[in-house]
Amino acid sequence: SECGSRLREWVAVQSDSGDHTKWGEVERILNMTAVRIQEMGGTVDIADVGTHQLPSGETVSLPPVILAEFERDPKKATLCIYGHVDVQPAKMADGWTTDPFNLTEIKGNLYGRGATDNKGPVLAWLHAVESYQEIPVNIKLIIEGLEEVGSYGLLELTRKRNDSFFADVDFIVISDNVWATRNPALTYGTRGSSYFFVEVDGPKLDFHSGVYGGSIQEPMSDLIALLGSLLDHTGKILVPGVTDDVAPLTEDERKLYDNISFDLEEMKSVAGVKHFLQDTKEEVLMARWRNPSLSIHGIQGAFSEPGTKTVIPKQVTGKFSIRQVPNMDPPDVERKVKEHLQQVFSTLKSPNRLRVTATVGAKPWVANLKNPQYVAGQRAVREVFGVEPELIREGSTIPIAQNFQEETGKSVMMLPIGGHDDGEHSQNEKISRYNYIEGTKLFAAYFYELSLVK
Amino acid sequence: SECGSRLREWVAVQSDSGDHTKWGEVERILNMTAVRIQEMGGTVDIADVGTHQLPSGETVSLPPVILAEFERDPKKATLCIYGHVDVQPAKMADGWTTDPFNLTEIKGNLYGRGATDNKGPVLAWLHAVESYQEIPVNIKLIIEGLEEVGSYGLLELTRKRNDSFFADVDFIVISDNVWATRNPALTYGTRGSSYFFVEVDGPKLDFHSGVYGGSIQEPMSDLIALLGSLLDHTGKILVPGVTDDVAPLTEDERKLYDNISFDLEEMKSVAGVKHFLQDTKEEVLMARWRNPSLSIHGIQGAFSEPGTKTVIPKQVTGKFSIRQVPNMDPPDVERKVKEHLQQVFSTLKSPNRLRVTATVGAKPWVANLKNPQYVAGQRAVREVFGVEPELIREGSTIPIAQNFQEETGKSVMMLPIGGHDDGEHSQNEKISRYNYIEGTKLFAAYFYELSLVK
Repeated sequence: SECGSRLREWVAVQSDSGDHTKWGEVERILNMTAVRIQEMGGTVDIADVGTHQLPSGETVSLPPVILAEFERDPKKATLCIYGHVDVQPAKMADGWTTDPFNLTEIKGNLYGRGATDNKGPVLAWLHAVESYQEIPVNIKLIIEGLEEVGSYGLLELTRKRNDSFFADVDFIVISDNVWATRNPALTYGTRGSSYFFVEVDGPKLDFHSGVYGGSIQEPMSDLIALLGSLLDHTGKILVPGVTDDVAPLTEDERKLYDNISFDLEEMKSVAGVKHFLQDTKEEVLMARWRNPSLSIHGIQGAFSEPGTKTVIPKQVTGKFSIRQVPNMDPPDVERKVKEHLQQVFSTLKSPNRLRVTATVGAKPWVANLKNPQYVAGQRAVREVFGVEPELIREGSTIPIAQNFQEETGKSVMMLPIGGHDDGEHSQNEKISRYNYIEGTKLFAAYFYELSLVK
Repeated sequence: SECGSRLREWVAVQSDSGDHTKWGEVERILNMTAVRIQEMGGTVDIADVGTHQLPSGETVSLPPVILAEFERDPKKATLCIYGHVDVQPAKMADGWTTDPFNLTEIKGNLYGRGATDNKGPVLAWLHAVESYQEIPVNIKLIIEGLEEVGSYGLLELTRKRNDSFFADVDFIVISDNVWATRNPALTYGTRGSSYFFVEVDGPKLDFHSGVYGGSIQEPMSDLIALLGSLLDHTGKILVPGVTDDVAPLTEDERKLYDNISFDLEEMKSVAGVKHFLQDTKEEVLMARWRNPSLSIHGIQGAFSEPGTKTVIPKQVTGKFSIRQVPNMDPPDVERKVKEHLQQVFSTLKSPNRLRVTATVGAKPWVANLKNPQYVAGQRAVREVFGVEPELIREGSTIPIAQNFQEETGKSVMMLPIGGHDDGEHSQNEKISRYNYIEGTKLFAAYFYELSLVK
């Protein structure tokens, strides 16, 4: 089909924003997006968002952000759709069954990096727009290429355009997450995130462990001690004070969890784990959605290839991130983490040098469920899928949800179309053909319902 | 010069034995070695040493071992020279200043992977043989291509050939280490080593830390806890019982350390560290030569590239090794390490699976300093360098030193020619042109002195 072939074309672009040397590909997919919108009759503004300093100190130009619009009828409601066309890294060696950049359909699923996060949903929005002769709402689009690294430049752009591009916007909608279960969902909250780099710098060269082993305090053992001080085996974060500001659970909030058709045994099977850190579905959901978490992602600079190497790495950088929830404040978390790591490092009496840096720092987000766009969203789901949507939160981070809400004062909603087993950021990421097509219908129905509630 | 050009040709072969997919290059350099020996008039036996099972379970054919000889005069002493032509991994991205596989001379130093460990010394032996019209001793050569991964198959070959190839050997000499200081040295001991793989296997896919973070006991945090239980910040190994069998220091042994012209400040500067784990030169030397050590080399399976990736890796493998000294026993160490890690893992109450495997398991080695070949070695050093050699031990592992001594009952000596700052296993490995040429003269003088002491 034409839909599948356009997604194939987009997935083929290796727009991995985590590696700034690939930002040329990010710019290419942004350009393809702009051309597509113009072909559909939209107007496009390619907004420059300046430069960025990498952890190395190097300054690089940021890929631009696309601002676009269809229609401008003052009698109609104006909906602003956000999406991104950059992706997480992917390579066959990570364990993909198919080439991650060659969209492959197997048994009704479309496999490829970005299929569900977020190229598929962005194309679904464009197809929903295309499905109308006359769109019932004014449509604005804001499409970026740096979501996976923290949307550099977007917050400032939002501020700058608050009185122009955003002035007549009534609602902002984002489809950059997935359903929690087999049922469609509306999402009213996301966790924030800070990504930390813990660099321990020691001898001036990598050394042979036979020659120097036993006489040198190795950066790697310092780093293991630092990373080991972050959380215990129950998943509890051990950085002092970091979880003090977590919002207490209200009775109203607790009740929302009863209605989620989450099946613990099925989710264990999907994840391939014997048990979760929590015992009940409600506790697991709260751990993912409304409580903070800390994950250690890896170590750069140490020996990471197959086989054996008897090296003492001279410099190693541990990487971890903390997912944050209301009312945690990322700058406060960053300060506490840095103080904690410096304190632990001082007990190691190390001759090595410690440098802790952090990026992203996105705030958590919670929306007001009573806003009319949530009513429109619920009606559209009923219409297309014939069921009541689940009201869910999202454990992962879409920094601009909170940023849009805070900076523009507009209502923000997330309207996912991806399946709960789509594997975003993982090997064999996919979107099902069913979700891709019904999702397009959902978006079209949502435009219509929104025109009624305004 | 011809010497430099042959070393350049050998260094250009990427015979990295740590990666079994490169064993074709190991076989190529072995073949080049065999051809060279035959051109010099030696006879060559290419010995098949069977197969090897990789940690993955796959069985692979091992590269062969070269057995060669020059002369066979029953009136002469017979010296067997050991060397290896495989190398450690190397790539520009690790921080090399020059291409590691393109030998580059800068200010009298020849930079390249294998320049000092061990291609340079193997060529120096061949050049020493070539320097004689009639060699004063019978020469045998045993050249392998798997030293860096533990000399698979060599021990069994030694056993099989004990009554044939080794029957008429009087002395075995190895030049696979470096001087401890600026002074030439004879080496009478090496540490043993066991290399451990700690695999923690969890969910069935890599997951997004936003989606699953907080609900899953992550393999990476289990692994960090396991690795963190191995040693403290003073370098003390915390695995119960592992250091119980370390030989006590005798007064005679202690005195040997007074005569090493080791300068603590200079060594700090060479290593680029503010301080070592010990305070005196004697303590540092003992830590490197006669005490055990544990180094954590890295983690396979986690995110190790530049940039950010918010992944929960499904399976991670920590890699560390323990350098061992008399009277530690590698199988006993392996058992204690496995018990310890299983015990720590049980406290984590993890749903993940732990698998600890070990390779190498080489025993430590100490020689009898009173053997005549040590007398010959001392005389040759005096003759070529005009100084008394230092009697040193080596912190790194040459598994076959102990194996040769134990299996053949012959005297084994190590006669290094590399400089103390050659950086074997490190970035910018080199041998100086001075050491390469004077080392060749030392080997030639050693042949002559050996013919007198027999």
